[in-house]
Amino acid sequence: MWSTMQDSGSWTPKRARAAFRDGLDVPTSGLAPGHTQVNVLTVPREYAYDVLLFAQRNPVPCPVLEVTDPGSWRSVLAPGADLRTDLPGYLLWEEGQVSAKLPNATAVWREDLVTFLIGCSFSFETLLHDAGVPLRHVEQGTAVPMFLTNRPCNPAGRMHGPMVVSMRPIPARLVSKAVQVSGMMPAVHGAPVQIGDPEALGIRDLGRPDFGDPVEMRDGDVPVFWGCGVTTQAALMAVKPPFAISHIPGRMFITDVRDTEYRIA
Amino acid sequence: MWSTMQDSGSWTPKRARAAFRDGLDVPTSGLAPGHTQVNVLTVPREYAYDVLLFAQRNPVPCPVLEVTDPGSWRSVLAPGADLRTDLPGYLLWEEGQVSAKLPNATAVWREDLVTFLIGCSFSFETLLHDAGVPLRHVEQGTAVPMFLTNRPCNPAGRMHGPMVVSMRPIPARLVSKAVQVSGMMPAVHGAPVQIGDPEALGIRDLGRPDFGDPVEMRDGDVPVFWGCGVTTQAALMAVKPPFAISHIPGRMFITDVRDTEYRIA
Repeated sequence: MWSTMQDSGSWTPKRARAAFRDGLDVPTSGLAPGHTQVNVLTVPREYAYDVLLFAQRNPVPCPVLEVTDPGSWRSVLAPGADLRTDLPGYLLWEEGQVSAKLPNATAVWREDLVTFLIGCSFSFETLLHDAGVPLRHVEQGTAVPMFLTNRPCNPAGRMHGPMVVSMRPIPARLVSKAVQVSGMMPAVHGAPVQIGDPEALGIRDLGRPDFGDPVEMRDGDVPVFWGCGVTTQAALMAVKPPFAISHIPGRMFITDVRDTEYRIA
Repeated sequence: MWSTMQDSGSWTPKRARAAFRDGLDVPTSGLAPGHTQVNVLTVPREYAYDVLLFAQRNPVPCPVLEVTDPGSWRSVLAPGADLRTDLPGYLLWEEGQVSAKLPNATAVWREDLVTFLIGCSFSFETLLHDAGVPLRHVEQGTAVPMFLTNRPCNPAGRMHGPMVVSMRPIPARLVSKAVQVSGMMPAVHGAPVQIGDPEALGIRDLGRPDFGDPVEMRDGDVPVFWGCGVTTQAALMAVKPPFAISHIPGRMFITDVRDTEYRIA
């Protein structure tokens, strides 16, 4: 496994997807750098309008980059990929709870399933790095920490739930830069939703994230919060639909699209 | 009517909507300046998923700013407004053709109707003007010219059709400025889709727009083309759904939202 991972930083998206298809199960941050990674949510067609409308009404945490046709496991963002097998792993959701963690979704696939590919803040991490903004979770080799907040999303049909945010500690003098760089990518969460006040978001302990791993803050770091696509999983917990499939937080679907495609200037 | 129109440039959105409710039927360009105007498309719930997905797959011509719940004529973008009465006029569509032009939609309203409010390029016109970019159609007191193009939209379910563009003649030295200013507003069509080559879009005669009015180009002007929400009406023509209601091109719904809300930087 080590020899496999050693050179994974230079993998193409296709090579990474093939490794996942063959069973590799690792966080995807830093893999195939510069290529857009996405959150994945698969629901029955009967729920698709509510999910799409929920995303439209909550575009900051839930920016939709692609919606498949019912039954299709193909993605226009990654020609040749198979959405049933090419992620590191899958969560099977039943009645709002994770009923299984699966290496692939082939056995549970259905003809009525619609898959939503939702933007991920990893897309601006390369640009943050290039702008000289350090990424603590990458330095520390951990998954970005994510938190449930006290901010309700705008409901849509049966869909509702709290906004989830990702948190990155940013040196105070670079917070402005981080806002500007991420703000140029509104299709992948855009600018932060809040800076510097976790309590106001209902986050009591930055050391205990609801998803991902804790990250060590350095002296002078300010906690900066961005909308997060795991908001869709918080909605599954709240709404308790009979059936859904999702990615595992931090283990995303890697597309062939360059992050810079989503940069507007 | 003249005394009514004389001071309309200083109307609030609420005042303009009240005038339309009382029967005024005029183009809305330049009314309640600085407030977001939107395209309106109302369809039965049974078509709503296809329309929303069509918009998601064609975000440049069809940026969705709001979707109502079935039967509702209220808009969160204009509290107190009535979507059935507060536009200058309405087109009733049956089987892909305009079967009636109506002063209001009250008599044809149904409990299963879902209304889409779609961004309009008028939103960046104030900013273009402030940046010193002349707007020929405003100077000439005409509706912006709009054209069917040879570019097919990405289909979604039953929805398909060609992209419609609006065209503004821009002095060559200001084209770059116009791109930058509009590019900062991706939620209201964003940067131009094409600059300077109408033939490549399948437009044979700039003097004969498919919607709106012809505009006189001045020496040194370059034709600049932006995505246009009337794309949804071109889709109605192509798809021929049994029933739909829309605004009249150039006669938009005026919301209470400031255009600057949609400016990302």
